[in-house]
Amino acid sequence: MFALDLIIKKRNGQKLTKGEIEYFVNGYTKGEIPDYQASAFLMAVYFNGMDTDETLWLTEAMLNSGDRVDLSAIPGVKVDKHSTGGVGDKTTLVVAPIVASYGVPVAKMSGRGLGHTGGTVDKLESIPGFRTNLSREEFIRNVREIGIAVAGQTENLVPADKKLYALRDVTGTVENISLIAASIMSKKLALGSDAIVLDVKTGSGAFMKTVAEAERLARLMVDIGNGAGRRTVALITDMDRPLGNNIGNALEVKEAVETLNGKGPEDLKEVCIELAANMLFVAGKGEIELCRNLAAEAIEKRTALNKLIEMVIRQGGDPKVIEDTSKLPRAEFRAEWKAEKSGFVEKMNAERLGIASVLLGAGRKTKEEAIDPAAGIELVKKTRDKVEKGETIAFLYASDENRIHEALQVLKSSIVIGPEPVPEKPMILGRIQ
Amino acid sequence: MFALDLIIKKRNGQKLTKGEIEYFVNGYTKGEIPDYQASAFLMAVYFNGMDTDETLWLTEAMLNSGDRVDLSAIPGVKVDKHSTGGVGDKTTLVVAPIVASYGVPVAKMSGRGLGHTGGTVDKLESIPGFRTNLSREEFIRNVREIGIAVAGQTENLVPADKKLYALRDVTGTVENISLIAASIMSKKLALGSDAIVLDVKTGSGAFMKTVAEAERLARLMVDIGNGAGRRTVALITDMDRPLGNNIGNALEVKEAVETLNGKGPEDLKEVCIELAANMLFVAGKGEIELCRNLAAEAIEKRTALNKLIEMVIRQGGDPKVIEDTSKLPRAEFRAEWKAEKSGFVEKMNAERLGIASVLLGAGRKTKEEAIDPAAGIELVKKTRDKVEKGETIAFLYASDENRIHEALQVLKSSIVIGPEPVPEKPMILGRIQ
Repeated sequence: MFALDLIIKKRNGQKLTKGEIEYFVNGYTKGEIPDYQASAFLMAVYFNGMDTDETLWLTEAMLNSGDRVDLSAIPGVKVDKHSTGGVGDKTTLVVAPIVASYGVPVAKMSGRGLGHTGGTVDKLESIPGFRTNLSREEFIRNVREIGIAVAGQTENLVPADKKLYALRDVTGTVENISLIAASIMSKKLALGSDAIVLDVKTGSGAFMKTVAEAERLARLMVDIGNGAGRRTVALITDMDRPLGNNIGNALEVKEAVETLNGKGPEDLKEVCIELAANMLFVAGKGEIELCRNLAAEAIEKRTALNKLIEMVIRQGGDPKVIEDTSKLPRAEFRAEWKAEKSGFVEKMNAERLGIASVLLGAGRKTKEEAIDPAAGIELVKKTRDKVEKGETIAFLYASDENRIHEALQVLKSSIVIGPEPVPEKPMILGRIQ
Repeated sequence: MFALDLIIKKRNGQKLTKGEIEYFVNGYTKGEIPDYQASAFLMAVYFNGMDTDETLWLTEAMLNSGDRVDLSAIPGVKVDKHSTGGVGDKTTLVVAPIVASYGVPVAKMSGRGLGHTGGTVDKLESIPGFRTNLSREEFIRNVREIGIAVAGQTENLVPADKKLYALRDVTGTVENISLIAASIMSKKLALGSDAIVLDVKTGSGAFMKTVAEAERLARLMVDIGNGAGRRTVALITDMDRPLGNNIGNALEVKEAVETLNGKGPEDLKEVCIELAANMLFVAGKGEIELCRNLAAEAIEKRTALNKLIEMVIRQGGDPKVIEDTSKLPRAEFRAEWKAEKSGFVEKMNAERLGIASVLLGAGRKTKEEAIDPAAGIELVKKTRDKVEKGETIAFLYASDENRIHEALQVLKSSIVIGPEPVPEKPMILGRIQ
């Protein structure tokens, strides 16, 4: 009857103890607490919340439910980066090489994408030959030797989160800041890095729709990270528009390479430099201003691009596609999405662009689905741009013409064209440490 | 995924439709909606509530999940009575004969008690030979012929409530006024009477601790009853003190008979006359003042007592124990609970008296447990009474001396003796129609 006591305690708005939270997480993970009590408990948490202590205890209990990646064989301050997810977010492909180019080890384990678009691992796999299923030994050896590795996540990390997330998904208990923070941070902590930079997205294409919500989540996750002894910083970045111009796996690799070549779109470059600077900062490379300069320099001097090429070679990928991105997989069909009126782009709904890219084949709707590496969207116009009726807003890529028609239907309602240019909005909306 | 939509809708504080509530109740009763979604839904209802419409739809959907008792073969306005449960509540034994003595049919199906004390059926079974397991035919024939029958409930009435109640009990979702009202009223409606009088108890020995809460529950149940076409009135009555002096099955039969003989305690008599008057009122016997006079007259003239004897005979019981209650089952052991100080009884915690009576054997802790008909408590002193140190507060009855010691431990902390008599408090705290 102890589980019932915890439900009632949280339902009545009382603070739980560390021991009570551990009892719940362990009992549920082992199957001793049934789903129906866990879901009632989660709904009580949805309504009454958890404070920072409770959230930290929840995170630690979840972390302790499974294995942890041991990176102690790698010298130096290992830095990890996590994004809460956004459309066109290829920042890892840019910032990991920048940071690694300064000798800061980046041991990145990444999940596959579900929902909007592919994950980092899916993006990298659009490089012919690139292997992400590294053994633990190979992964650690690579980081030791070249300072960087990106691999898929295979271990039994945080089984409590797997079970709780599946239950939350079907019981309307996803949208609670403490449950979200504990889910993200338990996985981050299990991955074993010493310092963490979080990229909390906000806007129409993100889970957190307002800056205030994003700040609350960021604050909580930073407190958890620091509370667990990892130096943690969070950025709040804009996801009211897609990040960069390209959405889709090979298309995003192409754009990341362009960015490392100093030719990427400004918005993407701005976010990548800020993220990389903060990763260098938490790794102890100096004051944040200095770290911003270092990040920019790694692009100017192509040292980061060379680090990416080094990683691609080491993980079995073909470096020629990095040197010449026209050799990346290309889609059979290309179509144009044209403006239906003249004016200025007022809004582009990032979420709908993400849905369209999934329809084109760039993402998965279910875990089992295969991804088409070449499919996606290349935006020619973005928010604030002037556009004439009939002008191309974007190119669509797919291996099936029907998919293009479906995607165009979704895209039509994803744009607002108005008479005046909208005011410029910064990409970086906050920084929490 | 429809169940998830309902959870989220209620979680977000929106009003559900009749169809949505039917979908939930039917899906859950049939096992198509799993426990873990039902419990999350119930917790969302706990926090965001249901309005009167939603509660009525919930009640009707639950009612439609099973069989209904068909009383149409009995002419007249059949009247039912329900108490939300209290310690020492033997009113049915008094009011049913009063009402039936005026030709108003009382077809009472009653559950067994669980928790504090025995139910009406348990109490009647302390009369040697009394049968409560009447067939449906026998039950209806008795009401047709003598105007009254009290039987145990055997049918598949409101299976949705059985399943939902079991889930609420283990998920911290019992204490919601809409869920309570729908649970009570779906069962009352299934029992088929045309008019209903509800006795909503309030105070330390009741589920509703304050008059305001009791009024809210009463209002909702009256609206549901009237909404379903049954004339319904609710009384709010005091349960800060036990009702009458006796707690325990044979002890309560004895006290009910005394009351029908005009010799019962004042508090019990007051509540019984008001309940009976309202039952006569909803049956259309006239204005409430007239009905109060009728109820009092049925006691004065012993017509109600004769009706009870008629029912006891008809259901196989020994009428001699009604004529001479000293022939009711008597316990082997009797002990005194003595005052530890002098003064005035300020408070007697009815809930703890109930717990003590269960320890003595008068009630069940689990469904399987047998009840000792003779066990219980006979209060000599009640709230406001003067008491001297060493004087008897109550007599305790049990068939096992150990039980008496256990009960005395509980009783010690159930009384407060103060220096001054506390102000008198009415038994009837409200009437809602």
